Amino acid sequence: MTEKSLSHVGHDGRAHMVDVGDKAVTQRVAKAVGRLVCLPETLAIVRDGKAPKGAVVATAEIAGIMAAKKTAELIPLCHPLSLSKVSLTIEADETLPGFHIVAEVKTTGQTGVEMEALTAVSVAGLTLYDMLKAVDKTMRIEGVEVVAKRGGKADFG
Amino acid sequence: MTEKSLSHVGHDGRAHMVDVGDKAVTQRVAKAVGRLVCLPETLAIVRDGKAPKGAVVATAEIAGIMAAKKTAELIPLCHPLSLSKVSLTIEADETLPGFHIVAEVKTTGQTGVEMEALTAVSVAGLTLYDMLKAVDKTMRIEGVEVVAKRGGKADFG
Amino acid sequence: MTEKSLSHVGHDGRAHMVDVGDKAVTQRVAKAVGRLVCLPETLAIVRDGKAPKGAVVATAEIAGIMAAKKTAELIPLCHPLSLSKVSLTIEADETLPGFHIVAEVKTTGQTGVEMEALTAVSVAGLTLYDMLKAVDKTMRIEGVEVVAKRGGKADFG
Amino acid sequence: MTEKSLSHVGHDGRAHMVDVGDKAVTQRVAKAVGRLVCLPETLAIVRDGKAPKGAVVATAEIAGIMAAKKTAELIPLCHPLSLSKVSLTIEADETLPGFHIVAEVKTTGQTGVEMEALTAVSVAGLTLYDMLKAVDKTMRIEGVEVVAKRGGKADFG
Amino acid sequence: MTEKSLSHVGHDGRAHMVDVGDKAVTQRVAKAVGRLVCLPETLAIVRDGKAPKGAVVATAEIAGIMAAKKTAELIPLCHPLSLSKVSLTIEADETLPGFHIVAEVKTTGQTGVEMEALTAVSVAGLTLYDMLKAVDKTMRIEGVEVVAKRGGKADFG
Amino acid sequence: MTEKSLSHVGHDGRAHMVDVGDKAVTQRVAKAVGRLVCLPETLAIVRDGKAPKGAVVATAEIAGIMAAKKTAELIPLCHPLSLSKVSLTIEADETLPGFHIVAEVKTTGQTGVEMEALTAVSVAGLTLYDMLKAVDKTMRIEGVEVVAKRGGKADFG
Repeated sequence: MTEKSLSHVGHDGRAHMVDVGDKAVTQRVAKAVGRLVCLPETLAIVRDGKAPKGAVVATAEIAGIMAAKKTAELIPLCHPLSLSKVSLTIEADETLPGFHIVAEVKTTGQTGVEMEALTAVSVAGLTLYDMLKAVDKTMRIEGVEVVAKRGGKADFG
Repeated sequence: MTEKSLSHVGHDGRAHMVDVGDKAVTQRVAKAVGRLVCLPETLAIVRDGKAPKGAVVATAEIAGIMAAKKTAELIPLCHPLSLSKVSLTIEADETLPGFHIVAEVKTTGQTGVEMEALTAVSVAGLTLYDMLKAVDKTMRIEGVEVVAKRGGKADFG
Repeated sequence: MTEKSLSHVGHDGRAHMVDVGDKAVTQRVAKAVGRLVCLPETLAIVRDGKAPKGAVVATAEIAGIMAAKKTAELIPLCHPLSLSKVSLTIEADETLPGFHIVAEVKTTGQTGVEMEALTAVSVAGLTLYDMLKAVDKTMRIEGVEVVAKRGGKADFG
Repeated sequence: MTEKSLSHVGHDGRAHMVDVGDKAVTQRVAKAVGRLVCLPETLAIVRDGKAPKGAVVATAEIAGIMAAKKTAELIPLCHPLSLSKVSLTIEADETLPGFHIVAEVKTTGQTGVEMEALTAVSVAGLTLYDMLKAVDKTMRIEGVEVVAKRGGKADFG
Repeated sequence: MTEKSLSHVGHDGRAHMVDVGDKAVTQRVAKAVGRLVCLPETLAIVRDGKAPKGAVVATAEIAGIMAAKKTAELIPLCHPLSLSKVSLTIEADETLPGFHIVAEVKTTGQTGVEMEALTAVSVAGLTLYDMLKAVDKTMRIEGVEVVAKRGGKADFG
Repeated sequence: MTEKSLSHVGHDGRAHMVDVGDKAVTQRVAKAVGRLVCLPETLAIVRDGKAPKGAVVATAEIAGIMAAKKTAELIPLCHPLSLSKVSLTIEADETLPGFHIVAEVKTTGQTGVEMEALTAVSVAGLTLYDMLKAVDKTMRIEGVEVVAKRGGKADFG
């Protein structure tokens, strides 16, 4: 790992937004996941009707999609990007118990969209938390990570 | 739990921003935590100088503080609030290995600031991820949760 | 009407954000309405399933609520406000044909919230338009107005 | 109309930001209109000097232009776009009585700019409303619609 | 000066948003100034009609007012505040040659509004620069400072 | 200079966002500078440890970089742009006494990035001011100007 260095920090130890002006313009995709873990009773409330699943899940899905567009405002050294696609789905899972969140983001540009996908997942999780916090003080967001990335130099997933 | 219901969803199953106009104006505090788990080599790079710890950690701490102020923009049903204090600290921990993130937020108002503290932690974690992703594809954000809340009806921590 | 003058324009003809520092802090409410007029077929698509009503209507309702919080960013001379409540409902109406949009906003402060209610209605209408524009080029937003206002000097509705 | 479906809603009834990554990059233009209807006395105040027309109309024109740039922040499923031109003009019309608002927006990209033009018109109308509301409680925004669209598959106007 | 220390930096050398939760709620005012220095010909263009003074100056005045409301978004450790008044005026001055910019901001709160006044002046100056840069490459912004501050512990001006 | 006219103001004296749709897509760079002038004691505090230079300078550098991305939101007639690089450095200078601020911004697009570089410098200066204002009421921002511009029709520097 001695060859590796941090793209966002210069030789002088200062943070900067790295120059991507000479990188290839390619179609880039990233997929991120995460989960909100809650009490079984909380999941039951969402599923059984007191809190119609539509309202809770739809609100969090939309919040995640909108957050992807705010990534460069939130993450100091992220490049502002035109996104060509954002999708985000939330599925309840009784075995967690909780919710699985998956986001996929695409762009045609000079830099990847991992941060956009991770931001979408995080904000969707925060929104679920906000909508359910009146009934559950134990919730936590876990496992927010990138599971696939394509179109750059180091693809995986 | 039959008495409980979701504050952000009405009888008709629709999402709305709940009315807090008649709640007491009190000083409210919330504390949230989370962690970014990475490879031991990544932590070593931050600590041993290639990536001066100052630049990486200071950027993420500032991003987290600024994100607390954007909470109501990100979370659809959060009330816009005047915050009287936001602090956020990131500590490296070789036993994780990774970074512990702690945020504390205060307001004098009619509603709590858990979401602001959680948003600060999440965005600080995303910023660490962004600054370290060139050297580590294995990172993930874990354990984002509220550990203390005071000034409302259901204090804890 | 000779006594009346525009609060946002000074004696010198310049725009400014009017001083409300000496106005009473009261609980203020405003209610605004508007409608999106579309083809009967468009309404049928939303109602009969191709486009589940939930997704279209829920997205527009959330967009309207979030827009209320952005009013002071959009309207140059609006005061930034802490809102204590925002609710927004959209109802399909075959006799229009189209959708009725109603928003209600509350604050405890020194200035009214008509602009927040009107902004919520407008952006909810724009979001309906966006989600339905693939199937209908004839849509238009009509009748955006304030129908009630309380807590200031000139209440009505 | 059985062939038609909503681009922003998937087979599963969920909202998503549609993938435009494979659409042609073309120069796209959209033109939208709308009007603010007010009392004849209100128009007279703007025209005859108490409220110099410059301040009221110029503020609303600038607000509309700035709002076009915020469209993707306001409309959940709109793609963020680089705009190459935004123009907006407001004309007083005594026969309404009120103001006609016209916005034209251009981009070179993979998706149209109707929503940007409609958002510009709406926010210009809201800003006129805000600046005149001290003297007129009867105002309403009417007829916000797209009148021309070029550069995509379904041009008109 | 040995007693003095920086409010935004803690004992550990970390940046944080200082706790103002125990400061008095008072009416606070700040006034800031600055100037855009340009070529005499540039001033003549604005004054003599090619670029109607209204459009250039009115746009910059509105931009400055709107920027005051964005201060807490721009300055990392600024507290978000409800502003009760923002006024900003720009006057051409042939002896500079250039433009004098003056902003006054008021709030009722726990912390001062110097940063809001300075931000308004700076962004008004940048907007003048933007509107005049096609005809003048020599412009510069000078003398941006606070000239009066009232309502806190250390009033002046 | 009779041939020159203002790009952002039309024949009718109205402000508009100029059409750049037919300009060449080139790699464009701009460099801007400015300085914050303060008391010698203030500089000593930053340098000698009470206020660790890292926290003050790093916060202002990050604020400047983030502000570059907000330029089109702040300056009414600026085009929204994808930036490929932003760097910003702040150096203490005892002969001022104060701080020199330098920003460099790059894009591949149809319009220059002077405004982005100037905005970065201005907001970095405002952030220094904010972090030091508790110990120094005499500070002012001076000499904010563009020193180099490449990739357009009128390169210099």
